[in-house]
Amino acid sequence: MLYIIGLGLDLKDISLKGLDAVKKCKAVYLDGYTSQLPFSVEELERLIRKKIIIAERKMIEESNEIIESAKKQDAALLIPGDPLAATTHVELLLRAKKEKVSVKIIHASSILTAVAETGLQLYKFGKTASIAKWQKSFRPESFYDVLQENLKINAHTLLLIDIGLSVNEALSYIKEIAEKRKDKSILNKEIIVCEKLGTNDGKITFDKLDKLLKKKFSLPSCIIVPAELHFLEAEILKSFK
Amino acid sequence: MLYIIGLGLDLKDISLKGLDAVKKCKAVYLDGYTSQLPFSVEELERLIRKKIIIAERKMIEESNEIIESAKKQDAALLIPGDPLAATTHVELLLRAKKEKVSVKIIHASSILTAVAETGLQLYKFGKTASIAKWQKSFRPESFYDVLQENLKINAHTLLLIDIGLSVNEALSYIKEIAEKRKDKSILNKEIIVCEKLGTNDGKITFDKLDKLLKKKFSLPSCIIVPAELHFLEAEILKSFK
Repeated sequence: MLYIIGLGLDLKDISLKGLDAVKKCKAVYLDGYTSQLPFSVEELERLIRKKIIIAERKMIEESNEIIESAKKQDAALLIPGDPLAATTHVELLLRAKKEKVSVKIIHASSILTAVAETGLQLYKFGKTASIAKWQKSFRPESFYDVLQENLKINAHTLLLIDIGLSVNEALSYIKEIAEKRKDKSILNKEIIVCEKLGTNDGKITFDKLDKLLKKKFSLPSCIIVPAELHFLEAEILKSFK
Repeated sequence: MLYIIGLGLDLKDISLKGLDAVKKCKAVYLDGYTSQLPFSVEELERLIRKKIIIAERKMIEESNEIIESAKKQDAALLIPGDPLAATTHVELLLRAKKEKVSVKIIHASSILTAVAETGLQLYKFGKTASIAKWQKSFRPESFYDVLQENLKINAHTLLLIDIGLSVNEALSYIKEIAEKRKDKSILNKEIIVCEKLGTNDGKITFDKLDKLLKKKFSLPSCIIVPAELHFLEAEILKSFK
């Protein structure tokens, strides 16, 4: 059996069910590249009382090591947040099914719903987009297209920040594209930065882009561009100014 | 201190952090009306080793009992899924802040991300809508408007089913509105029903509306109307036919 287990947003966010399952496993892998952990691998090893094997991109996407391991014994793949949020893990699930390996998904908290702490109503969020680090010759703006689509239907946009990118770089990309597209509505809009949501250091900041660009933010963080605000949303956001 | 603690989707979905917190609490309330639990209150009491007070709508929305309790001692409000997904709990959070009661949110798994088990990519979901039971003189179609908005930007739609409504009734509302609006695309589209996702009885069914209307479904369930499918999404969904 292969257990795909969510770790949630903080060290002790794994569920009781998840901990029960991991205790049964002979091999425990940790997805070490699709998102950043707000705790160390050693802390996690002490918590679950198991030695952890760090699974790099290649091990999850190309090699069959995890699936082969789960054929011989109970194995776990631990994933920050709720599993299957990343396409990579859905692909792994599909490959496991093809190889007739039973898979059990154990859910946990996710940034996609933890953002409700901002006061924004979850059902008003539209599509989610990721901001990737720009290369010299590849400066993807697709996240901005998603943002504009969402605003068209009055939906909030959650922007995830890829590993290797700082919040300030991500904010500067938004500004650069908004200026290029002459999109004043974004330049004048108050937007949100959520740092380490779900941990004791969780912090929400609500301000205009130019003001946010002068601040320093820690990781993991995400950015939210709100659509029109309901008065209750506005009232709560005010407290984060 | 008031702890607002998510219970996730199944009996043992509460996080280790959530269990630690509830153990410290002198008063433990359970939100008993915003969503359906796939386990009994007695099972939950045995798990957390605390007597539970069921909080009905009035206690959460109108009375100050929970906030007053948290002024005197550590108190917990347990909420199925991830807390703050319902506006009611956001309002409670705001009232607590006004009364200077410290609040700590402890997250858990949510149907909003557990639907990734369908193979649909989470970042392609648009706004979420709820289907409420129709009354003789009030037959709200707003969920269908959300669905049409989402399809305009090629986003999947998660339709939650309010308490008191069966899956078949919800499906029949979709059919009735689609026929009234002459919306053939929905009548011919394959859609998804997710039953008890996140539990051992979790089941996903993928079929046309008319076929689904002939089946029986258990609760809690939700319905998903997918937008255009990526080939990987289509491949996984095929396995649920």
